[in-house]
This record gives sequence, structure tokens and C-alpha cells, in this order.
Amino acid sequence: MLDQIDLELKLSKSDYRQRLDDLQARLYDMEQALLEMKAPVALIFEGWAGTSKVRTISILTQRLDPRGVRVHPITAPRTYETQYPWLYRFWLKIPSYGQIAIFDRSWYRQALAERTHGHGDIRLWRDRCEDMAAFERQLAADGTVLLKFWLHIAEQEQQRRFKRLLADPLTAWQVTEDDQWQHRHYAKVYAAVEDMIARTDTAAAPWQIIPATDKYYARIAVFERILHALETRLGRPAVAPSAETRSVGPDLSGAIFRHATAASTLATPLPTSPPALQPLAERGMLQRVDLSLRIADDEYARRMKLLQTQIYLLGLEVYKQQRPVVIVFEGWDAAGKGGAIQRLTTKLDPRAYTVHAIAAPEGDDKKHHYLYRFWRRLPPRGAFAIFDRSWYGRVLVERVEGFAQPDVWQRAYAEINEFERQLVEFGTIICKFWMHLSPEEQLRRFEQRQNVPYKAWKLTDEDWRNREKWPLYEDAANEMLLRTSTPTAPWTVVEAEDKRFGRVKVLQTVVNRLEAELGKVKL
Amino acid sequence: MLDQIDLELKLSKSDYRQRLDDLQARLYDMEQALLEMKAPVALIFEGWAGTSKVRTISILTQRLDPRGVRVHPITAPRTYETQYPWLYRFWLKIPSYGQIAIFDRSWYRQALAERTHGHGDIRLWRDRCEDMAAFERQLAADGTVLLKFWLHIAEQEQQRRFKRLLADPLTAWQVTEDDQWQHRHYAKVYAAVEDMIARTDTAAAPWQIIPATDKYYARIAVFERILHALETRLGRPAVAPSAETRSVGPDLSGAIFRHATAASTLATPLPTSPPALQPLAERGMLQRVDLSLRIADDEYARRMKLLQTQIYLLGLEVYKQQRPVVIVFEGWDAAGKGGAIQRLTTKLDPRAYTVHAIAAPEGDDKKHHYLYRFWRRLPPRGAFAIFDRSWYGRVLVERVEGFAQPDVWQRAYAEINEFERQLVEFGTIICKFWMHLSPEEQLRRFEQRQNVPYKAWKLTDEDWRNREKWPLYEDAANEMLLRTSTPTAPWTVVEAEDKRFGRVKVLQTVVNRLEAELGKVKL
Repeated sequence: MLDQIDLELKLSKSDYRQRLDDLQARLYDMEQALLEMKAPVALIFEGWAGTSKVRTISILTQRLDPRGVRVHPITAPRTYETQYPWLYRFWLKIPSYGQIAIFDRSWYRQALAERTHGHGDIRLWRDRCEDMAAFERQLAADGTVLLKFWLHIAEQEQQRRFKRLLADPLTAWQVTEDDQWQHRHYAKVYAAVEDMIARTDTAAAPWQIIPATDKYYARIAVFERILHALETRLGRPAVAPSAETRSVGPDLSGAIFRHATAASTLATPLPTSPPALQPLAERGMLQRVDLSLRIADDEYARRMKLLQTQIYLLGLEVYKQQRPVVIVFEGWDAAGKGGAIQRLTTKLDPRAYTVHAIAAPEGDDKKHHYLYRFWRRLPPRGAFAIFDRSWYGRVLVERVEGFAQPDVWQRAYAEINEFERQLVEFGTIICKFWMHLSPEEQLRRFEQRQNVPYKAWKLTDEDWRNREKWPLYEDAANEMLLRTSTPTAPWTVVEAEDKRFGRVKVLQTVVNRLEAELGKVKL
Repeated sequence: MLDQIDLELKLSKSDYRQRLDDLQARLYDMEQALLEMKAPVALIFEGWAGTSKVRTISILTQRLDPRGVRVHPITAPRTYETQYPWLYRFWLKIPSYGQIAIFDRSWYRQALAERTHGHGDIRLWRDRCEDMAAFERQLAADGTVLLKFWLHIAEQEQQRRFKRLLADPLTAWQVTEDDQWQHRHYAKVYAAVEDMIARTDTAAAPWQIIPATDKYYARIAVFERILHALETRLGRPAVAPSAETRSVGPDLSGAIFRHATAASTLATPLPTSPPALQPLAERGMLQRVDLSLRIADDEYARRMKLLQTQIYLLGLEVYKQQRPVVIVFEGWDAAGKGGAIQRLTTKLDPRAYTVHAIAAPEGDDKKHHYLYRFWRRLPPRGAFAIFDRSWYGRVLVERVEGFAQPDVWQRAYAEINEFERQLVEFGTIICKFWMHLSPEEQLRRFEQRQNVPYKAWKLTDEDWRNREKWPLYEDAANEMLLRTSTPTAPWTVVEAEDKRFGRVKVLQTVVNRLEAELGKVKL
């Protein structure tokens, strides 16, 4: 999840000023409308130490009517608070109807601290995550708009900020011992945060991950998301006109992780609404893929041979250790899924794997819950199942083509995470690949297929139609990558502009993952 | 929960025949309608060994179109099934759209077996319950009608049945070793079942507990619930005309645990629907209370003195052991809640307890989630909080008076169980009392209040209005008692026709519960 955030995003100061002004005015209007509708709002600010959460909150509240806002700074529990169930102090701070409650840290802070400090009881952690999800579900069922922000910076950036703050006696106090502890254990906390987000990212209360290297960008992004969520709730037009207006081309800038966009199209714009905002430039994972990566002929041959041998040996190990393996391929048409699968299985014992090509459901599969056709195709212990397209169709093709309603595909992220967690808890090893190329390269391959008789069968009218919806698919893929990349079932985006580079990356990733789970093999 | 089931209910053979005929015909019609609507149905049969589940299923399917039905007998997992995640074999058996899948035992059987046999890992149990709830939530979200039956008989009855079966060589084979093991461990399994029902009784897939001492009664009850659920789903009139048509009187027979009743009133009856069925007589907990219980003057004085001393000593222990205590009083107007609370607190250290009188929410409480006013009134460690009416208002007055919509109060059972579980996990000791009397005795007390000047303030017009809705409140209370009586937060129904008997029972129950949690005190 966090590895997919573009930490390079920036905003100029003048652009920031202009947008801020507009946003503050709109947020003020929203506050009044919320009060009238008696809708409670909870804004939860979590994130790395050093991401200026307090400053962001202070600018957010600057122009709001203070009677409608309560800010709750959350520290470690006070002595009297330990006299009550752990959520007690948060129960007391929920917003009243029409009020905005802003949490500077929250229940997540406490759960994270327990997990990362001390002995870190994993079972307690799971109970905590369950408690938090139940708490948020209860609030959401009661009509509360919940927004959870994770302000994200890299380890280096945190170090840089701490250094600067500590150098000045006037700001040095801001860096607490806790903050320094966090920085020394960045990797450990990072892993816990990823797991936390995976477990508590629900349709009722989705996480918003904000790249916060540039403070201007981060602030505007936060305010935009808030405005967007509130406008959606109040039936006003949403911020982002989004992908439909964008065209295929190298200058793609897609909105990432903007869960409510599709739902907002259900709302009828009020005639009095202000014009929609120009959305903040965001780049999802796919806009940042380096498609110039290539591999030389001789290196390809050499590495492929080595990798295939390793995979053969690891296949034996999979059988010996009786672990099931699931490998998922998604990606653009003609991006080389088939070719990669072929290389992956070349030396595998044919009894050890099954390749499932997933097209539109038919027969029995069509007559059941959408996960049914994957449940029944799961590998037993000691075997591989390779999926050429998969359950992710729910949040890709079914979303884009409108086969699934917004509430259905939005619910699917949590369902899929639940499904994969159950597999992982059983011992399944999961690899997921998104095969990526540019629209230009895709066009080249389509034309080549058209002209080579024995490849022509691969190209259908549907491929051409899908191509026209490139930006919509790209948005869907970006959100999918972000919401379903979990620590135990991560996505790998494969740069497949050069087919052979892509194949090597796929095989290498599988080898790394299997070795991490099963132990290194000796050649 | 299970202790509240009336195991005495019976049905005559002639009545059974007549009802069965009608029900079978209606179920056949339903099956056709389901097929047209493509609605999947899962019927799950669980219950004690010896409750003739197979026979019930066989009669159920007798007149159905076999193409629309699949029966899945569930045994211990086969060897090949252990090659997959534990739910795999159930994933493969979900009903297709328009089909009825009948499970003779289910995922619950497996989870129960793991819990009660072997070392009974409680953490694994919790994970299993979470997995099952997620599975059912996914199916329900996809439109599946889920009905879960627990066929209930007492230990003695099970023994009687086993004896009869074992006496005849033609039926002896039916009693398996597993069944005999279950019987030898009836109490252990009973506790596990109660916990299982509490954890998995959700709005999406509620449990139906069927008294099965009389096979005719049990079968008709099962068929009625199925028909009722399907009719509700298809927008036909529901089985039970229910409480509205019944009058206040000694001959109360209320429908218990019929969760969907209120929701069904939302559906518009189709003009072509057959006439509604005469509902099967059922008696909830409250119809079976023995209101003749009395206590003699001298015994009352003696026991009250002893109990109050014990409560004083246990109060010290509560403080020493730093456990919070929550005591909830619900019940009829004038049933003696106030008097019982007064006796309970007579000798308690006044610093140790707070009594919260809960009327309609006002001010801050009205402007928040309904649990807020109870969250903020929770006792700290080492103290008592006594609630004179409570969060149960959601499923009592708010349900009956229509202040809460059906989906809201139906959701509340799970929310309340979640809330109380969080308290218990923190170490809170919970006692819940329903103070019960007859409508006649209530009338006598109302009139007395009217005529005694210093008691007149206690009687309001609302009391008279509530009295008119007695049967509706009774239904709501019966369902509440059944759905929210959990092993760790049980309800006690107090026979309060004789005020003093009621008071002694309350104090004795508190003493027993505190001693069980804190250890016996020496007088």
C-alpha cells in the first residue's frame, strides 16, 4: 500500500494560496449545510511524526465556525482513562449531530503503540483492529461521515525534518522522545501501519493515504478529500470530474484512491452549487511506472535459464512443505500475461500447477456469488494455481463497464482482502502481478496481431473497445493496487513495455517470494 | 439464550397434519417464485444429536421440486478437504441463484467440534466465529436468504431418545460415538453453543432457536420460519399477524424470536397472495414466568438482612479487585425497579455506586449516537453503575413506538452484544434484570398510586398509554431477552408479582454473580 504512494508530488506556493482560499470558503459553506442536516463528521489525522498534522488542522479550522468544530488531541491514555475500556475515551469524543470532530491522532495511535512497543501481542492487535472496525461501523451506520487520513513521508524525509526542527531551540521541543523512537523503528512501524490499514480499510470508513513530502500539496489534498466527501454526502457535485475528461496519452494524471467518485455521480447537482473544483494533480502507481526498462538479449537468456531452474526447485519445495501457491495476473490487453505464464510454467512439474483463464462467468459460475468460481479453483496444499485474470475483475471490468453497481464494487475491496487473508492464514503464498505497458505500445502490438495470421485470434473487437476506456481502467487499477496491496498479499507492477524485461521481473518476483516463504534453494 | 426456550411446547398430530399440508403447498409455490427471482437460499440445520434433523429435512424436501434443492450432509472433513482452507468445502456448496441449499450440519459443526474436543483453543474459536460471520455477511450482501436453525432439547430428553433408539437394533446405529460423546459433555457443549450463537447472531443471518421436545411442533415451527422468511423476501404477507391482534389478558401467547416480523410489514401484500397462516402458538420467556411466587414476611426480613450484608462485603471486594460492575434494570412500569435498586444500594458505600435513571434522551445525549449516553455513564474500575432503564430502550420503547426504524432496532441486537462484549473483555461484571408482573397486578398498583398522594407523581399518562401496548412490549421484550442474553451478560427475569420476592431474587442474583466472579465472601 504505502509503497505505491507518489512522494514526489508538489504544489507551488501561489497555486497553494489560490486553492486554499477557494477550499476554505467552500468548507465553511459545507459546515453550515452539515449543521442544517445534522450530519456528524469525524476527521481522523494519523501519520508519521513530522508531517505537521497540527498545522494542517489549524489551517483547516481557521475559517470554520468554531461552534461547529471540536479538536481532540490524543496522547497516551491518562491514568483515569485506564479505569475504563480502552475505547472509552474515544466514545466520549464522538461528534454530535451536525458537529465536526477532528482527531489529532486517534484510537489508531493507541493500537499502533501497543503493537510496536513492548511485546507486541499479535492477538491483542487483532482484537483491537476488530474493536475499531466495529466502532467505526456503528458510527457509520448512524450516519457519521468518517475520514481517516494517513500522512505519509519516507524515512529519509522524516530524518531531514527532525534534523531541521532539532537544530532550532525554538522548535526542538516539537520532536518528542516518542517521535525519535518511531524514527529509529521506521521499518517496524511501517509494517504495522500497512497491516493496520489493510484490516481497517472498510467501505464505511476508508483510509485516505496522503503523500506529505510537500506540505502545500498534502494540505490541499486533505482539504479536497474532506470537501469531496462532504459534498458527496450532501448531494452536491464532487470535486473531481475525473478520468472521463482525460484522453489517452503520455501525460496521464489520474486521481488516486478517490473512493467516493463513482458514488457521487448518483447525486443530482443542485442548481445553486458552485462550479466544481479543478482537481489536484495526482499520480497513481501506474502513472509512475518506468516503462523505459529493458533487458539485453544475452542477459535475458542467462537469467531466464537460472530463474526457471530455481522455480523448478522451489516447486519441489512447495510440494515438500505442502504449501498452496496462488499467482494472479492482471493487466492491459496484450501486455504479455500469457507469455509470462508460459515462461513461469516451462520447467514446473505439470502435475503441480493449473492455469485458469478467467473470462466472463458462464454456466455454474454465473449462477453463484462472484467468489464462487475462485473458491472452487483454489489450489490444494503443495500445488500452484495460476490465474490469468481473477477476482479482481469485480473492481476492474465490472466497475468500468457498469456490470457492478458502485456499492457492490466498493464493498468488494474489503471482501477481497478478507478472502485473501483467509487464504494466507491457511498458509497460502500469494503473488499478484499487474502487467503494464503504454497505450502506444499496446497499439503497436494490436496492429502486429492483426497482421500476423497465427496471432490474429488473440485480438477481438472488445480489445479495441477496452482501449478506448484506458483512463477509466487506469483509475480503477490504481485504486485496486492501493486498496488491495496488503503485506501478506502484495501487488507487483511489472514494467512490460519490453516483454522480456517483464517476464524476467515476474519470474524473479516469484522466486524471491517463494524463497522468503520456503527458504533458499541450492542450485 | 437457550435457557429461555420453552421446551414444553407441543402440537397434536391432527393439527400437525393439517398445518403440514398447507405449509408444503405454500413452500412449493415459494420455490417456484425463488427460481423466477433467482434468489439463493441457504437453510442451515444445527442442533443436538437426536433431534431428527434428517427426518425434518426429508419432510421439508418431500414436496419440493428436486431440481431446485440440494441437500449437503456435513461430516468431519475428508482428507482431501483438509488440503484447503477450512471453509473451502462450504464455499463449494453455496446455493446458486434461485436454488435452495440445505445443510444437515454445517460450518458450525466443525467449529463446535474443534472447540469442544481436543484442547479447545479459544483464540482459534474466535477466529472461526469471525470467518463464519464474514462468510455469511458476504453471502447476505449478495442477496442470499440465510436461515440458521438450532434444534434444542434438554439433556434428559436427549438421554431418553438415545435410550429408545439404542434399545432397537434397527435404530441403534443412528446413535454414533460422536453423539454419545456429546451427551456425556452436554454442559460443555451447551456453553459453547451459547457463545457461538451470541457471536454469530447477526442481522444478516439471525439464529432461529427451535424447541424440539415435540417433533411435530419443531417441524411446523421450522417450516413456518422458512416460509415467513421467504415470503418476507418476496414481498408477500408474512405468516404471523402477531401481537397487534392479541389483547391483554392471562392467555398471552406471543411469537418469540421472529426477527423479520416488523420488516415484513414494509412489503405490500400482493393481491394474489394466499391468506396468511394462523401462527403456531409460541410462548416466549415472559409467558412462562411463574408469577405465583411469594415470600413470607419473616423470611423476607431475614434474607434481606443477610443479602445486604453480603453485598456490602462484595462491594469492598469489587473495589479491592478493581472490577467495574454494571447492573441493568428493565421491566414493566410499576414492577418495582426503584424499590429493588433502593434495597440493593442500602448498605453499599455511597462512593462506590451511581444510579442512572434513563428517560428519553435530552440535550447532549440526544445529539449523539444512542450508545453515547451509556458510554459516558460507564463505571470506572472498582465501582458500580446501576441503570434504571438502559440501552435496551432501543429495542423496547424505540421499537414499539416507532422511534427507530426496523432496520435500526434490528441492527441494535448485534451492536448491543458487541458493546457488552467489549465491557466484559475489559473485566466488567454485568447483571441484567427484567422485572416482571401481570397486567392485573400492574393495574392494581397504578390505581393505588393514583389514590396515595405521595405516590401519585410516579404515575403519568404515558404509563397508561404504554399499558395499552402490553402485547407489543411483551413481544419486544421476549425477543430482546432471547437475542441479548449471552453467557457473559445474562438476563435474569424476576418474578415481581410479589414485590418482596422480586427484591430478594434481585439481590440474591447479584450476590451469586459477584461471588462467582470475585470469590465467596466470609460473613
